[in-house]
Parts: sequence; C-alpha cells; structure tokens
Amino acid sequence: AQSTRIAVTPGDGIGPEVVAEAVRCLETLRAKHGLDIEWTRFPWPSHAWHEEHGESMPADALAQLQKYDAILLGALGDPGPMDDPDRYLLPDSISLAPLLDMRKGFDQWVCERPARLLPGARQYLADERAKDIDMLVIRENSEGEYVSQGGRLRKGTPDEVATQMEVFTRKATDRIIRYGFEQARNRAADRVKEGRTRTFRTLDGRTCESQVCLVTKRNALRYWGDMYTEAFDEISKEYPDVATHHELVDAACMKFVQSPWAFDVVVASNLQGDILTDLAAVLSGGMGVAPSCNLNPTDPDMPSMFEPTHGSAPDIAGQGLADPTAMLFTAARMLEWLGRKDPAVAAAGKELFDAVAADLAENSGTRRGTHEIGSAICERLSQ
Amino acid sequence: AQSTRIAVTPGDGIGPEVVAEAVRCLETLRAKHGLDIEWTRFPWPSHAWHEEHGESMPADALAQLQKYDAILLGALGDPGPMDDPDRYLLPDSISLAPLLDMRKGFDQWVCERPARLLPGARQYLADERAKDIDMLVIRENSEGEYVSQGGRLRKGTPDEVATQMEVFTRKATDRIIRYGFEQARNRAADRVKEGRTRTFRTLDGRTCESQVCLVTKRNALRYWGDMYTEAFDEISKEYPDVATHHELVDAACMKFVQSPWAFDVVVASNLQGDILTDLAAVLSGGMGVAPSCNLNPTDPDMPSMFEPTHGSAPDIAGQGLADPTAMLFTAARMLEWLGRKDPAVAAAGKELFDAVAADLAENSGTRRGTHEIGSAICERLSQ
Ligand SMILES: CC(C)[C@H](C(=O)O)[C@@H](O)C(=O)O
Ligand SMILES: CC(C)[C@H](C(=O)O)[C@@H](O)C(=O)O
Repeated sequence: AQSTRIAVTPGDGIGPEVVAEAVRCLETLRAKHGLDIEWTRFPWPSHAWHEEHGESMPADALAQLQKYDAILLGALGDPGPMDDPDRYLLPDSISLAPLLDMRKGFDQWVCERPARLLPGARQYLADERAKDIDMLVIRENSEGEYVSQGGRLRKGTPDEVATQMEVFTRKATDRIIRYGFEQARNRAADRVKEGRTRTFRTLDGRTCESQVCLVTKRNALRYWGDMYTEAFDEISKEYPDVATHHELVDAACMKFVQSPWAFDVVVASNLQGDILTDLAAVLSGGMGVAPSCNLNPTDPDMPSMFEPTHGSAPDIAGQGLADPTAMLFTAARMLEWLGRKDPAVAAAGKELFDAVAADLAENSGTRRGTHEIGSAICERLSQ
Repeated sequence: AQSTRIAVTPGDGIGPEVVAEAVRCLETLRAKHGLDIEWTRFPWPSHAWHEEHGESMPADALAQLQKYDAILLGALGDPGPMDDPDRYLLPDSISLAPLLDMRKGFDQWVCERPARLLPGARQYLADERAKDIDMLVIRENSEGEYVSQGGRLRKGTPDEVATQMEVFTRKATDRIIRYGFEQARNRAADRVKEGRTRTFRTLDGRTCESQVCLVTKRNALRYWGDMYTEAFDEISKEYPDVATHHELVDAACMKFVQSPWAFDVVVASNLQGDILTDLAAVLSGGMGVAPSCNLNPTDPDMPSMFEPTHGSAPDIAGQGLADPTAMLFTAARMLEWLGRKDPAVAAAGKELFDAVAADLAENSGTRRGTHEIGSAICERLSQ
C-alpha cells in the first residue's frame, strides 16, 4: 500500500509557528506507532512567496498539491503594517484567494466545523448549559454566494450598479444535505458507543437520537431557499431516524447565542455557513481552538484541506506566543479523515485529539508559549 | 398645524395584545401632555384578513397607509398548528410579505436597531463588560440581497439551477453610509449631553468620540464589497471626527459575541444587517426588548414603520402572557422619530422610554402578564 502523504503549507504570520508544533506531534505519533505517513513542506501559498514571485502560489500549485492525500494549512494573510490603512485593506482578497482556489480546484464541497465547548476552553455565554454545546456545522463549500459572478456597471460613478449572482444547483444541494444526514447518523452512533444519548423531537411528535437543522433565508431569498427546503424535505424521508428542523439564518444566529446546546447538525449555504461557523467557533471557545475542514468526500483523487479557523495574527507573529491548540485539533481532524483508509492513522488522530483536549483542560489559563504547549502535548503522546 | 397620525396595525398572534398596551401608553401620554396625535387601527396585514380575503392586505393598502405619519406594527405571521410541518413551513413567505412590501413601497431605506443592555434585561454573555454594550446597527433596507431577482431553471429536476441576484446601487450605498456617519455624530453629541464619553482609535492613531464600522464580505463578495468600501472611504473624509473600522461579516458576528462593547455604529447590507441586528437584539437582552425601525429619513410624504423585532409567538398568543416591553420601546422610538416635527412628541417618546426602562430595571424576573406590565408603565406615566 502507498503511504499517506501530507502537503504542509505553513503560510503567513503565526502559521509557520503553529504548523511546526503540528509537525512535531505528527512525527511523535509516526515514530510511536510506525505510521506510514510522510509530509512535504511548501513555501506557498504565502505573502513571502507573493513578494518574490508576484503571485501567492505557482501556476501549477494545484497540480503539485493534488498528488497529496491532504493539505495541512497554517494561516494565510499578511495585512501589512496596522497603521497603514491602505496596505491594511488591500491584500486580504489577494492573500486569502488560495483558500478559495483550493476549495474550488479540489471540489472540497464540504466545509465542516465542529463546535464543542471542551473543558478549559473559554466560555463566552453566561448560561452553564453552554458546557453541553456539541454541534457540527456543515457548510456548502462549492457554489452559492461564492461563485464570483457579477460586476460593476458604471464603476466609480454616482450611477454605479454592482451585482453579485448567487448560483445554487440541485446537485450540490442534494449532496450537502445528504452529507448532513449521514453525519447526524454517525454522530448518533458515536454517542451510543460512548454511552451517551441525546433526544430530539420531530414536529409530528416522534423522538430521534439526532437532528439536522437546515438554515436558509427562504422568506427573503426565495429561489434557492425553496429549492433547499424541497431537497431537504425529500431527502429527510430517507432518514426517518433523524429529526429535522428549519431555521432562518437570522433566527439561527440568535439561537446560536441563546440555546446553542439544542443543535446537533446544522446545514447551511456557503455564505450563511461562513457566518454560522464563525459563531460556532466562538461558542466552542473562540479562534484559539477551532478547526476547519474542507473536504471532498467523493473523489479519492482530490486532497482535502485542513486549516485552523484563526487567521495569521500578524500582531503576534514571530514571537512564539501563538497558541497552537486550534492547529493541533485541526491536525487531529486530518488524521481522523485520512484514517478512513488506514485505521492506525485514525487511531492516531483520536490520540492527538485526546492529548490536546487533556492539555487544554489541565492548563487553561496558564501563560505558555507556542513551543511549550507543543512540547507538553508531544510529551503526553510519547507516554 | 396638522396633527400627527399613526396607523396601528396589530397583526397576528401576540401582536394585538402588545399593541393594546402601546396604545394605552400613547393615550396616557396624549392626555397628560395634550399631544396632538391620533391613531387609526387596521385589521390588516394579518392572517385573519388573509383567510377572509385571500390576501394579507387590500390592494390599496399602501395608498391608505401613506396618509399616516408612521405605522406601528405589532407582529406578523401565523405559522398554523405546530404539529403540521406543511402548514408550519408554508405561510412565512406569505404572511411576512407585507413587511417587505411596506419597506419597499415607502422606500424605508434605513432599518435601525439599537442595542443597549439595559438594567434588568437578560444578559447572555458571561463577560461583565456586556453591561457597556451600546451600539446602533444600521441596515440598508431597500436593495442588495433583497431585490427578489432570480429564478429556478429546470425547477424540481435533478438538474435544477436556482439563482438569486444581489443588486447594489452607489446611490443607496452612499446614503446609508452617510446616514451611519450622521448617527455616529448624533450619538457622540448625545453622550456629551449626558456627561459620558467614549473613545475610539483610528488606524492612524488619532482618537475620536464615535466610530462607524462598515461590514461587508469583500473577500468573497467582491463587487459590491469593493463599491461599499470605496464609498465608505470617500464619505469618511467628510467626517474626520468619526473613527472608521472595517469588518468582514463572519468576523463581525464573532466580535459581536466576543467584545460587543467595542462597537458604536455598524453599517451593513440588507441581509448581513438582518443577521447582525438579530445578534444585536440578543446582546441587548433578546427579543423581549428589541425595537426595530424602518425609516425613510428623506421623503416626508412616506411613513416610517415601527415594529418590535420579535415575531407573533403563536404558542402563547391569546393568553395575556406576552411581554409588551419590546413593543413599548418601539412605540417610544416612534414618538422620538415623529418628534422631529413636534418637540412635545419627542419628549413624550423619551418619557415612555424612561418609564419602560425603569419598569424593566425594577421588575426584571417577576412574572407578570401583558396587561399588568402595561398598567405598571401607564401608572408610571400618569405620575
Ligand atoms: C478567507 C475567506 C474567503 C473565507 C471564507 O469566507 O470562506 C474564511 O472566512 C473562511 O471561513 O474560511
Ligand atoms: C420577515 C423577514 C423578511 C425580515 C427580514 O429578513 O428583513 C425579518 O427577519 C426582519 O429582520 O425584519
């Protein structure tokens, strides 16, 4: 069998620092279990590469990356000096473009962001039930609001009209909704294995052990809102064991703050999912702990991409201060994903997750540097 | 001078119950101060009207309403029996349509939702600084994502494509941004009057007494994101006394939860503003206290519309249990708005606000019915 190959792209700012800790943990796990994994480091996409070559990554970047089973990305974006508004504003759309290029190029049609408030993570909500937050937000990652169609008529004049088209296909809608139901089932099965259950009630009074909540804005964005709803209602019939629920995106955001513990799986469009996943990240303790997975679950020739939800934090870059926790949770998720082919790799992912979670629970509140946290977790893994 | 005329549209569910208390308070204030205001009650828009006439309001509804200076709306929406998913899902787009019709018909191009966590209101965030939340979210209310352009190609087939066009004009962009800066100035002036100040730092290190934060998603929705940003940068030059700030909508939602006390005025598009205002409503205590103002500040012949942010709450309708606080804050906002023509009316609005706030502070946590709360506030006003 071929070994599992990982493309490591540290990126900008704190990216290289947190990625270094992830690689140390991977190396520890590889040595310990004799895992058949290897990794290659790329200097792109990055701001540094851009400054030298005039583009964030080489023209054949996607072709190079496609040979790997997964991409582990640190963070992108170098906003330039904070006190220069022009440089501060400009580069975002350039430096973050590779993210969108990879999602599109590798048809990573699922963006999956789990939100669980683990012991030790910062709790922003006053209600103690926040401890029970355990949801998975599944974002459609291939189309919708992000198709980049549109333009600016009479640009720069008082009569300017800017348009942006949202395009949704039934095919992409069906697959993301079906993926949501499958994940709901998987989560219910995992809970049973762990000896815990959750109960959700359907509108017609039945109880189920999992739930999918579909988020749209169908009362204002009617066309795709209706298509999403019809697809959801149809596909839900194949999953009578999963409770269903609808929310409008504004109400969903409110309920994420008021009663996030009531959600299980949430399916949303590209933009609405972007918003909901950032909210979900806060609910699970903030950017310091939130992983993000861009997945292509259907085409084995396409690598999936794993990145922490946080940015490149240029204000603390290069100082060894960044918390690598989110990056390490991300690496754990990556191993679990890659473990679909190799159970030993999946087990290593679980082991990494447990080690990071244990470290978080024990050391929350203590001031430690990037390397110190990485070392503590590597030590845990070596035991 | 002509008297100030208010069209009262109680609507559905708890709408009529909370509107009744608002009218009692208005009547108390009218009698007390000899205010020159009068109101007329309309049975539409409502579900009941729809059942009888097959439409939520008469064909000439807007023409009838246009004769008034303001519209005070209770709540719309009757979702039908909760245990019937079909009826539960259907009527939203029908019963809430009049909201959008009025906003469009009267060119209510500003939707303004203040968020202040008043004493007695429910605090969802753990951080005590939540008490300092004091922001005003200004939502573009006339175009953008809400133009209802688009359609469904090959509807209902596996090859379906649904499109939704977003249309933004520079004219509407300029006016909403300028409105935001004006409000920032007004708020700073009001703070000075009340003997308190806030300090905001600009990117180039100056300090200002107010701030406008522009929210877009310009790294993904490029065309109007860029136009908004250019308009913002240009107009901000006319307001060197106001600090400016940019956020992407996903980051803005996160920061609303992490540090909402850092915001002053927030300007956003129709959909993104819809989401942000719902979040802002939670931050200020939830739906029980949140007013919503749909304003046309430019055309004196067009009535503005005032509604609580909450819905019609059919589950508790008809039982006298609904909290009228949001409705009363909404009525206070309406009087303040109408008071632009008549200072006595503005003063009455301030008086109503103070009475509702005092009642909230004193009685938070006590269980009282709709009428009981209304009576307590009327009594306060009569003193
Ligand atoms: C950088 C940006 C384009 C991206 C997105 O909107 O998808 C980011 O916010 C994310 O969620 O990964
Ligand atoms: C009812 C709905 C169309 C409306 C909107 O999206 O504008 C509501 O959510 C609001 O915020 O007033």
